[in-house]
Amino acid sequence: MMNEKMSNRPFDLLNDSLGKEVLVVMKGSTQVRGKLKAFDIHMNIVLENASQIVDGQLKTNYGKIMVRGDSIVMISP
Amino acid sequence: MMNEKMSNRPFDLLNDSLGKEVLVVMKGSTQVRGKLKAFDIHMNIVLENASQIVDGQLKTNYGKIMVRGDSIVMISP
Amino acid sequence: MMNEKMSNRPFDLLNDSLGKEVLVVMKGSTQVRGKLKAFDIHMNIVLENASQIVDGQLKTNYGKIMVRGDSIVMISP
Amino acid sequence: MMNEKMSNRPFDLLNDSLGKEVLVVMKGSTQVRGKLKAFDIHMNIVLENASQIVDGQLKTNYGKIMVRGDSIVMISP
Amino acid sequence: MMNEKMSNRPFDLLNDSLGKEVLVVMKGSTQVRGKLKAFDIHMNIVLENASQIVDGQLKTNYGKIMVRGDSIVMISP
Amino acid sequence: MMNEKMSNRPFDLLNDSLGKEVLVVMKGSTQVRGKLKAFDIHMNIVLENASQIVDGQLKTNYGKIMVRGDSIVMISP
Amino acid sequence: MMNEKMSNRPFDLLNDSLGKEVLVVMKGSTQVRGKLKAFDIHMNIVLENASQIVDGQLKTNYGKIMVRGDSIVMISP
Repeated sequence: MMNEKMSNRPFDLLNDSLGKEVLVVMKGSTQVRGKLKAFDIHMNIVLENASQIVDGQLKTNYGKIMVRGDSIVMISP
Repeated sequence: MMNEKMSNRPFDLLNDSLGKEVLVVMKGSTQVRGKLKAFDIHMNIVLENASQIVDGQLKTNYGKIMVRGDSIVMISP
Repeated sequence: MMNEKMSNRPFDLLNDSLGKEVLVVMKGSTQVRGKLKAFDIHMNIVLENASQIVDGQLKTNYGKIMVRGDSIVMISP
Repeated sequence: MMNEKMSNRPFDLLNDSLGKEVLVVMKGSTQVRGKLKAFDIHMNIVLENASQIVDGQLKTNYGKIMVRGDSIVMISP
Repeated sequence: MMNEKMSNRPFDLLNDSLGKEVLVVMKGSTQVRGKLKAFDIHMNIVLENASQIVDGQLKTNYGKIMVRGDSIVMISP
Repeated sequence: MMNEKMSNRPFDLLNDSLGKEVLVVMKGSTQVRGKLKAFDIHMNIVLENASQIVDGQLKTNYGKIMVRGDSIVMISP
Repeated sequence: MMNEKMSNRPFDLLNDSLGKEVLVVMKGSTQVRGKLKAFDIHMNIVLENASQIVDGQLKTNYGKIMVRGDSIVMISP
């Protein structure tokens, strides 16, 4: 169904971002920022040195955090 | 179940839009605009040079962004 | 499980509507009207010359638009 | 897992209602009434001569309408 | 994974309730009461001589009604 | 994927609680307390001598009640 | 689809956290803290010596609690 232009798949962006900082926009008005350590096909991810931002305010720091894929709206490297 | 008139499938529109600017209407009152770089069968997409618009106001620019398919309502080239 | 009266299946209505104008009622108070160009088994659809109506007010025109099936409540030819 | 008392399955009620008027209670405060023309295992249905009622007020008439199963709460013949 | 104590499975309660009156608590503040005529593995059910109660007030009587499983929170015989 | 430390699986807690009183926290502000009689892999459960608590107030007693797994947030023995 | 950098999978973080205290951020404004005793591939988890925090206020203590995976947003060791 997909042609060659598809060689660039969405999860490639996550793969290329491993070890780098990403911004994760979540359902509700929460964002989490941290270094991407792991992800799986459900878009479950692990961030290191993560900080959670709610309504633009830094709320919590986490050493490591696992975020459930179905709570995620967007991920930007 | 589908006849020949179906040769035109919904994902063909995304395939034809690769490399072009698209508008993505998301759940809530958020829209994202950018160049479509990748998509998969879950409608997860990657946009380049993306800008997020909330309630009609430009909110954030992103170099690259992955948007989860289940947050998407409509995509227009 | 289904008897002969089922020969008339729901997706037949979409198939018969290809190339014709349909009204799409979506979750929230949004409606989209346009010519049905494509659909798949997830009820993802493509409309051409589409106009979006929010709370009864014309909001936006789209040349072509893909609408995700799981945002759709009703489709009427 | 099911014994003989199950010979009466929920979808039998829809099958018996083909060609007859049904009331469809949907998520939100919407009801649709019309003649049941078709249904599938996802509970997607097609109604003919349908009228939509919102908060007890007749809102719209439709010649034919397809209603997505996952928007449906109850169906009564 | 399950030991003998599991011989008593949740759907056994529905099976034992066939032909008897049950109370169905639904999402939102709606309850439906009626004689259980049928159910399937999705917890779709059919009630006979059903009455719908919203916020504690009797709202509607139905001869027969099919209730979608995914709108159901609790069922009590 | 799982090592030996996983021998203790979440559903073991339900299995060990069969015949004992459990507290079930549900979506919304509802709790149900009763003796756990049955459960399945969808976390559908049956409680006996159950009482429903809404916003901290005892609301209803049920001889037996089946609770749909997808309405459940937490279960504590 | 995944390269070697993926050897670090999200569920590894849960596996490494077995027997240690974790913070579980749930849908709504609820958090639960306790010692992680078990988890499965649906992210259902069991916590021991758990305390539930709602809007920043300690609300309830539980000896043991099973939390449904689909109510979970984030887990941090």
